[in-house]
Amino acid sequence: MAKIPVGILGATGMVGQQYVALLADHPWFEVRYAAASPRSAGKKYAEAVAGRWHATGGVPHPSVWGLVVEDAGDVSKALAAAKRGDCAFVFSALEMGKDETGSLEEAYAASGIPVVSNASAHRWTEDVPMLIAEVNPQHADIIPAQQKNRGWGAGFIAVKPNCSIQSYMTPVWALMRAGYEIKRMIVTTLQAVSGAGYPGVASLDMIDNIVPYIGGEEEKSEREPLKILGSISGAKIENYRGLEISAHCNRVAVIDGHTACVSLEFGAGKPSVEEAKKIWAAFRALPQELGFPLAPEQPIIVREEADRPQPRKDRGAGKAMAVSVGRIRPCNVFDLRFVGLSHNTVRGAAGGGILNAELLKAKGYIG
Amino acid sequence: MAKIPVGILGATGMVGQQYVALLADHPWFEVRYAAASPRSAGKKYAEAVAGRWHATGGVPHPSVWGLVVEDAGDVSKALAAAKRGDCAFVFSALEMGKDETGSLEEAYAASGIPVVSNASAHRWTEDVPMLIAEVNPQHADIIPAQQKNRGWGAGFIAVKPNCSIQSYMTPVWALMRAGYEIKRMIVTTLQAVSGAGYPGVASLDMIDNIVPYIGGEEEKSEREPLKILGSISGAKIENYRGLEISAHCNRVAVIDGHTACVSLEFGAGKPSVEEAKKIWAAFRALPQELGFPLAPEQPIIVREEADRPQPRKDRGAGKAMAVSVGRIRPCNVFDLRFVGLSHNTVRGAAGGGILNAELLKAKGYIG
Amino acid sequence: MAKIPVGILGATGMVGQQYVALLADHPWFEVRYAAASPRSAGKKYAEAVAGRWHATGGVPHPSVWGLVVEDAGDVSKALAAAKRGDCAFVFSALEMGKDETGSLEEAYAASGIPVVSNASAHRWTEDVPMLIAEVNPQHADIIPAQQKNRGWGAGFIAVKPNCSIQSYMTPVWALMRAGYEIKRMIVTTLQAVSGAGYPGVASLDMIDNIVPYIGGEEEKSEREPLKILGSISGAKIENYRGLEISAHCNRVAVIDGHTACVSLEFGAGKPSVEEAKKIWAAFRALPQELGFPLAPEQPIIVREEADRPQPRKDRGAGKAMAVSVGRIRPCNVFDLRFVGLSHNTVRGAAGGGILNAELLKAKGYIG
Amino acid sequence: MAKIPVGILGATGMVGQQYVALLADHPWFEVRYAAASPRSAGKKYAEAVAGRWHATGGVPHPSVWGLVVEDAGDVSKALAAAKRGDCAFVFSALEMGKDETGSLEEAYAASGIPVVSNASAHRWTEDVPMLIAEVNPQHADIIPAQQKNRGWGAGFIAVKPNCSIQSYMTPVWALMRAGYEIKRMIVTTLQAVSGAGYPGVASLDMIDNIVPYIGGEEEKSEREPLKILGSISGAKIENYRGLEISAHCNRVAVIDGHTACVSLEFGAGKPSVEEAKKIWAAFRALPQELGFPLAPEQPIIVREEADRPQPRKDRGAGKAMAVSVGRIRPCNVFDLRFVGLSHNTVRGAAGGGILNAELLKAKGYIG
Repeated sequence: MAKIPVGILGATGMVGQQYVALLADHPWFEVRYAAASPRSAGKKYAEAVAGRWHATGGVPHPSVWGLVVEDAGDVSKALAAAKRGDCAFVFSALEMGKDETGSLEEAYAASGIPVVSNASAHRWTEDVPMLIAEVNPQHADIIPAQQKNRGWGAGFIAVKPNCSIQSYMTPVWALMRAGYEIKRMIVTTLQAVSGAGYPGVASLDMIDNIVPYIGGEEEKSEREPLKILGSISGAKIENYRGLEISAHCNRVAVIDGHTACVSLEFGAGKPSVEEAKKIWAAFRALPQELGFPLAPEQPIIVREEADRPQPRKDRGAGKAMAVSVGRIRPCNVFDLRFVGLSHNTVRGAAGGGILNAELLKAKGYIG
Repeated sequence: MAKIPVGILGATGMVGQQYVALLADHPWFEVRYAAASPRSAGKKYAEAVAGRWHATGGVPHPSVWGLVVEDAGDVSKALAAAKRGDCAFVFSALEMGKDETGSLEEAYAASGIPVVSNASAHRWTEDVPMLIAEVNPQHADIIPAQQKNRGWGAGFIAVKPNCSIQSYMTPVWALMRAGYEIKRMIVTTLQAVSGAGYPGVASLDMIDNIVPYIGGEEEKSEREPLKILGSISGAKIENYRGLEISAHCNRVAVIDGHTACVSLEFGAGKPSVEEAKKIWAAFRALPQELGFPLAPEQPIIVREEADRPQPRKDRGAGKAMAVSVGRIRPCNVFDLRFVGLSHNTVRGAAGGGILNAELLKAKGYIG
Repeated sequence: MAKIPVGILGATGMVGQQYVALLADHPWFEVRYAAASPRSAGKKYAEAVAGRWHATGGVPHPSVWGLVVEDAGDVSKALAAAKRGDCAFVFSALEMGKDETGSLEEAYAASGIPVVSNASAHRWTEDVPMLIAEVNPQHADIIPAQQKNRGWGAGFIAVKPNCSIQSYMTPVWALMRAGYEIKRMIVTTLQAVSGAGYPGVASLDMIDNIVPYIGGEEEKSEREPLKILGSISGAKIENYRGLEISAHCNRVAVIDGHTACVSLEFGAGKPSVEEAKKIWAAFRALPQELGFPLAPEQPIIVREEADRPQPRKDRGAGKAMAVSVGRIRPCNVFDLRFVGLSHNTVRGAAGGGILNAELLKAKGYIG
Repeated sequence: MAKIPVGILGATGMVGQQYVALLADHPWFEVRYAAASPRSAGKKYAEAVAGRWHATGGVPHPSVWGLVVEDAGDVSKALAAAKRGDCAFVFSALEMGKDETGSLEEAYAASGIPVVSNASAHRWTEDVPMLIAEVNPQHADIIPAQQKNRGWGAGFIAVKPNCSIQSYMTPVWALMRAGYEIKRMIVTTLQAVSGAGYPGVASLDMIDNIVPYIGGEEEKSEREPLKILGSISGAKIENYRGLEISAHCNRVAVIDGHTACVSLEFGAGKPSVEEAKKIWAAFRALPQELGFPLAPEQPIIVREEADRPQPRKDRGAGKAMAVSVGRIRPCNVFDLRFVGLSHNTVRGAAGGGILNAELLKAKGYIG
């Protein structure tokens, strides 16, 4: 079967590089179009990233290195690529301001090119799904309404949430799916520096130090889960109203891997520690059922050791796409406590975006 | 005025070294007796710590370097020192097992030598006060009952709590003293490696990593505040019953300085963010009123910057004896959130012990 | 073709774990025997390493997890395994004292089991080859003399050098092989903490710090190259005498990857910077010519960026088996300077041992 | 005695802040004038550095916090301050481009205000002394010739060398002063991130990593010592020609403190290890003889431990103004090896500048 040709907007940035790396051997998708800022436009991809290649993991396909980078601001270039069969949809890893990113993503969608985005610009647009493929795959089905709303043809926008919530959102959902209502949640994160891009956090702030603040992160962490847990109502997604979240976000001296310390308060029914572990270990969802290429075999990995999960040791679990949980124990104030961990630049960024594209292909929205 | 001669049990360990360093220029106390394990006994102090001096801060008095280290297990040595006027009381920084430490501290007290201890052995002994000088100085007044209970003369035991709670306990108390009942508290700590002693945490566990577990720390963090907030009832201290605490304790790549992310739920009355800041900035207690030498001028320092306190930048505040608080904001689940920070090997260890001794002297129990 | 069954001595330690990880999918060898200290003996391998699995990389073959660990001190167990076809030779990752290791390795060899060792015990035994497969593969041919000397049958001992020299030894040899005599060399290493095992270096020594000393490392770095560059003379290997080396060894806060800053003084002929780069980029040796499974395609990778190689970014190059070199420039005192880097726990430990075994198989000494 | 009023150019940058911190309680100098970029001009100093105060050490004099920052580009402001008795000379911690800095420093000097500079702009100006107060204090005596050359009155420029050479230059000079000719030197440095300013080095480059390159640092390290060891000849300083230096400069995850691994080759006479230690321990120079306020009592501290000096443990020695040396041993290629360490933002920056000003005052050129 021929691979689907894809483009990457913001292809030379940190997240764009991760897309290139993770798509190197992808069985469904092939990178055939790369766009970035005007500064990179006209250069070969290899030149454009020379001396600032940050992604680890698979070495990208030589074909990508030879692609001539286009100006991401010029949609006509992508349209031309689409016409010649090189760009069936784009991943957006744009790093411009929010408004500019939002408008540009709309321009691509309006021109008929689906946009699977990592950017935050459209996370709160009512008719744009914010997808975690194991949690709310059904939200993809707002796409026809989105297209109709806006008079768009094949184009649309789908986004993924912020990386900070990925280390606990799937476990939280797994308990809810098993019938346990969660009413309140207090979470403290210890987040990796790669989440801030490059150069990002200064080493003077991270050696012998932590920074107990990440701009905008707590607000996102408290709001985004409510949309993800929400439901489609006509042409918009209505937020879930049954859950209150408080987030404390910290930056720590870790390269990759966000850790979260979570306390949960349940409604009437409360799972025991053993039940929670069973639910998590057994949890499978659409990506597993349909065998998506980047889906982790086991989306939630339960660690029984007293001192795990740890970012350096567990971030790579399940192709760096799984969430590892541990220290599952009763909470002295709420009902249950645990530590969750996920890889922020794979699961929390490009890997999550690719899994969303796999979902959208499986559902027939792209391809 | 002649200085009071003091001894240090466990003088060659990390905490013992901090005692030596911090007492170097103390106006009231002078180190004239040092005891440690049989391995060090008979050596001059300088030899015994050669190649493993970890304390920073003031260089110790040359007189200490020349002291011949005695066997801490042999109380008669301390008694002899007491008789020749070299040991009015001891600081206990013993690092033996809990039972052995507990018995040995009792033996010193029984022989007439007051013990001001950093060890955890007697924290839950009912007639032993667990003191934070700014929070529960009145608990020192259980000492006569303790002495009577046990048939001891001038000797007694007073202890300090675990270092992990110092970064939030004083702020919590300050709000309670101001009339605000705190009913529930969820706290996540990011603790420095010096808290684990030397060699302590392996560098393989701390480079590009955090460890979401510290053995026994969460239990201590959840229980010790209840005794500190408790009240003397006859010959024992009864725990406070109005507060529930849940603690998540993490080890991070920081040398000194424990940080805590705290969410507080109040009873009927709730302070606003501005009130909390005012209460904290204005908080003064007995150590400040009586001008104890190691008392920080301002026990709680309110930082207004968005990203403070930070361990490397704020642990030294108030001679490393103050608690720094910041990020004071409403909690999305409870009522108020903040970040607290204190220096774990100064305020949380030797410095806190010395401040307790200053309190005990001011109250007439030693000296 | 059936795989050759191999045993690992010291299988539960850090290097032993690396062997298990790296052999997981090896096309020639299969781990069928595991031995360790009496403490682990009798446990299944999975139990014996539970909670202390440090190796990253390939997840080991499930078959290994089920192996019952034997006592490495009991050679008869290995002989029994050999008889039932489970142990054609052993990798020695023993972590006992030098004398004990040396004797035990001899006992295995004497009983007919070849020993491919990472331990330092026999590095200076005259009839034992110390192999870097790309540098001195011909030294393997001392094995028949070794066997004859000692009256051994099929058994023998072959060792690898210390990990610290791997980051520059192959580049140095490549220049020598190209005809450039190197007379003097001053090298300063920045070595990863994994080189010290677990728990190894304390985090209190590695946060905001470096340690300019590694016990015994400088002596090894100065002597081992002379044997590797030496030649077989009768039944012993005679040291090369034409090279003087001075080594400064430092420990830095890096998980894996030793970096070396090297200044070289040549004899009469001196390569230009461009020649050195060409020689290194083109260098291939026996492991490449014969296509050994773990041989890096390109043993020396030349980096042209101003600030490379760097441990985190380059240690994985060539399956973590290549040496990366960069900053190749004239020396202001000697003739040529460069920075070399190799992965100390792969190339410098288990990976190097496996490559040696591949060499020994290719030469017919095992299998 | 009234203190000499001083100004700081670039007062809000990292080095400028260190000047403010270190001058807080200076017995001779008092900061009464602060200038920085136009962005800071007009603000109170406290505002201008709010949220970006990096200096540790003494909390600056409250009087400095209230100073209104002037535009460093406007010399007339400093002249006005000089006229009202607030600026007898300036410390230059300017962070502009080299040419701009050079011209501006000349403008100050031409207007009659002496400039004691940390900037590199004039290090190679022939009639400008590059001073290490313990090494070449006599170079200050080129100042009258400099003033005459340029037709300047009381103004002049004096500079200090790059921070990277401070960890070995004084020990090297001490041996030379004792009569030992040093002909060749190969040095590898492990430098702290504070040397790159803020934000400086990205944490993504320093966690689990080192960077074997610092732009321009090796060239400075190889050339600056030759001027420092040079001699005044008429109106210029002639370089010393007897020494060849090769420097490898690395960035490591250390906040403060540059470490250097040094190999020395002597001329005819060679000191033994014991002689070198004696020479270093006994070394005193003009700053010690005249008792300059910031002079370390002992400029070179010899550490006998096997694993010292280490940056975190030794950078503070001698008020962070001393050089610590250790690992003194024969070199296997040259004659003598050692490890040197100094505090790069104190001795290597503001502290070194202040010591130079103390020297210039003692010699009558300022005050």
